Amino acid sequence: MQEPLLMDIGNTVYLDGDCLIVVDRRELPLRVSRLSCADHLQVAEVIERMAVQGAGDIAVAAGFGLYLAARAVERNPRTAEKLEKVSERLTATRPTGHYLAALLKKLLLKTEGSSRPSEIILASLQKIIERQRTISRETGRRAEPLLSSGDRILTHCFAGAGLLYMLKFAREAGKDIRVVCTETRPYLQGAKLTAWSVSELGMETTLITDNMAAHFMSRGEIDKVFTAADRIAMDGTVANKIGTLQLAICAARYGIPFYVLGYGDRDGNTPSGKDIPIEDRDPDEVTRFKGEPTTSPLVRGRYPAFDLTPPDLVTAVITWRGIHRPDDFSLM
Amino acid sequence: MQEPLLMDIGNTVYLDGDCLIVVDRRELPLRVSRLSCADHLQVAEVIERMAVQGAGDIAVAAGFGLYLAARAVERNPRTAEKLEKVSERLTATRPTGHYLAALLKKLLLKTEGSSRPSEIILASLQKIIERQRTISRETGRRAEPLLSSGDRILTHCFAGAGLLYMLKFAREAGKDIRVVCTETRPYLQGAKLTAWSVSELGMETTLITDNMAAHFMSRGEIDKVFTAADRIAMDGTVANKIGTLQLAICAARYGIPFYVLGYGDRDGNTPSGKDIPIEDRDPDEVTRFKGEPTTSPLVRGRYPAFDLTPPDLVTAVITWRGIHRPDDFSLM
Repeated sequence: MQEPLLMDIGNTVYLDGDCLIVVDRRELPLRVSRLSCADHLQVAEVIERMAVQGAGDIAVAAGFGLYLAARAVERNPRTAEKLEKVSERLTATRPTGHYLAALLKKLLLKTEGSSRPSEIILASLQKIIERQRTISRETGRRAEPLLSSGDRILTHCFAGAGLLYMLKFAREAGKDIRVVCTETRPYLQGAKLTAWSVSELGMETTLITDNMAAHFMSRGEIDKVFTAADRIAMDGTVANKIGTLQLAICAARYGIPFYVLGYGDRDGNTPSGKDIPIEDRDPDEVTRFKGEPTTSPLVRGRYPAFDLTPPDLVTAVITWRGIHRPDDFSLM
Repeated sequence: MQEPLLMDIGNTVYLDGDCLIVVDRRELPLRVSRLSCADHLQVAEVIERMAVQGAGDIAVAAGFGLYLAARAVERNPRTAEKLEKVSERLTATRPTGHYLAALLKKLLLKTEGSSRPSEIILASLQKIIERQRTISRETGRRAEPLLSSGDRILTHCFAGAGLLYMLKFAREAGKDIRVVCTETRPYLQGAKLTAWSVSELGMETTLITDNMAAHFMSRGEIDKVFTAADRIAMDGTVANKIGTLQLAICAARYGIPFYVLGYGDRDGNTPSGKDIPIEDRDPDEVTRFKGEPTTSPLVRGRYPAFDLTPPDLVTAVITWRGIHRPDDFSLM
């Protein structure tokens, strides 16, 4: 058994000389096509266009964007953009997750006063990537005991490598787990990324459309729900891929535990859900499929990319440190 | 202002000599392409493949299938199939709605002992179509007073001509109504049929993916929900397009009225939701989009075409007779 490609960030976001290479997630799983970014503007674009996705991966990709800009500064100080400006551009790509902005801020602080910022950024990024690997693996390890053999779990969008680790550890413990994935319109990350990765782990994997979850819950065919989080406010509100909220509401109706893989901590700068900006993406992504319109030109689309799930609907949040109550993050 | 094509069944399902013509709904709204059925087997196929959709429309199309078979019997009694057999084939096309089977049974009964069954079937069908028109218009008229100017209503799949009549009457009464349509995967009836038809009525029409409804409800952007019903059991359980149940659960969470356009009566032969068969359609319709796979071949899809909404989640059912309590169908 080969590990799924998406289990390690190093497989899909990495440096090749003075270029950042990203595997274009929009083309997966049918094609593993690689995009090459020569400067931070191209990095910003692949993030905005969702060739790279997921809170951790977009943050690391943005970090590499800053690295490319620092290299350019060192090669030609006169024409190069100030790193603050570069960081602003990269921060503006995706507003809902807090980790991307936090990572760029941290890298920028470290380079202050240095004549070789690129070396500092690269060394920091290597540590950050290593830490992300640890966090994903440990989040999976902490979550695994929540699974019982025979469980059918539902998951939404791509909940990150931690979900895959959780399933891998469960399989190694001899548990029989089946996974149901929502396809996650409009980008179909559930179909393209999650269902593919889980099936590569050798588990029975079922794909459903986003409107079927409550039906299977009502029939007793879902035992637990697991999603990720792009940001968790201090009051426990979970921002995650659009569709998370309605899964949580339906799970509550049927008494099904709703777990959030939080990976790291809450965002100390976000007191409550009201303080989380919800990214509005291009409405054409809703009114078209692969470029072809699905409706009349008189119809407008709307595409909020995330929604907010209040803590009363969340059974627990799992991070690398353990299993937390959603409201105060105390360990359970 | 032209009336939307889907406001009258005569525009999309009609006889042309000895052929049944149906407008292929899967191609709408981009192309109005007509399919011609020369016998009842071809009619069964266009119903099964969802070129014709909706409880009323598939029933009438099946009735025309029986008519074509009766014509064939009259032309060549020796080779023709018994009408009972024909009716069985047509009844088997879509099991969840009860109206199709009931209509075929009624037509078959009327032809007993007749030497010219086709004439009897055609005359009956003409009456049935006229009655369907009346029921759609009157259901819309009964539902219209539920709307207040300024309402933003959410609807799912294609709730039939009654929804369009309701909106038309509201506009004629000077009410400002905006409509949000779920796209309704996998067949996208919300995008292709409803959003298109509503925009043709001149109303502001917004398309969202199926996972966004709770988000807009949580933000106070939905005032009322309207769906149709393929069958209503005597206990008030509503069978309708997959996704209806989770909209009803979310509406209940936010205290948003959830209305069902029931058109006709409950099915007296269906005591409760447990007695409604849920049609399972081809899983490839979930794992593919326009023939192209969206996930790995290791992943299996599932496609229950309908779900069951219990009466405690339904605010009221509207039929041509008025507004009913969902549990006992008494008038409200």
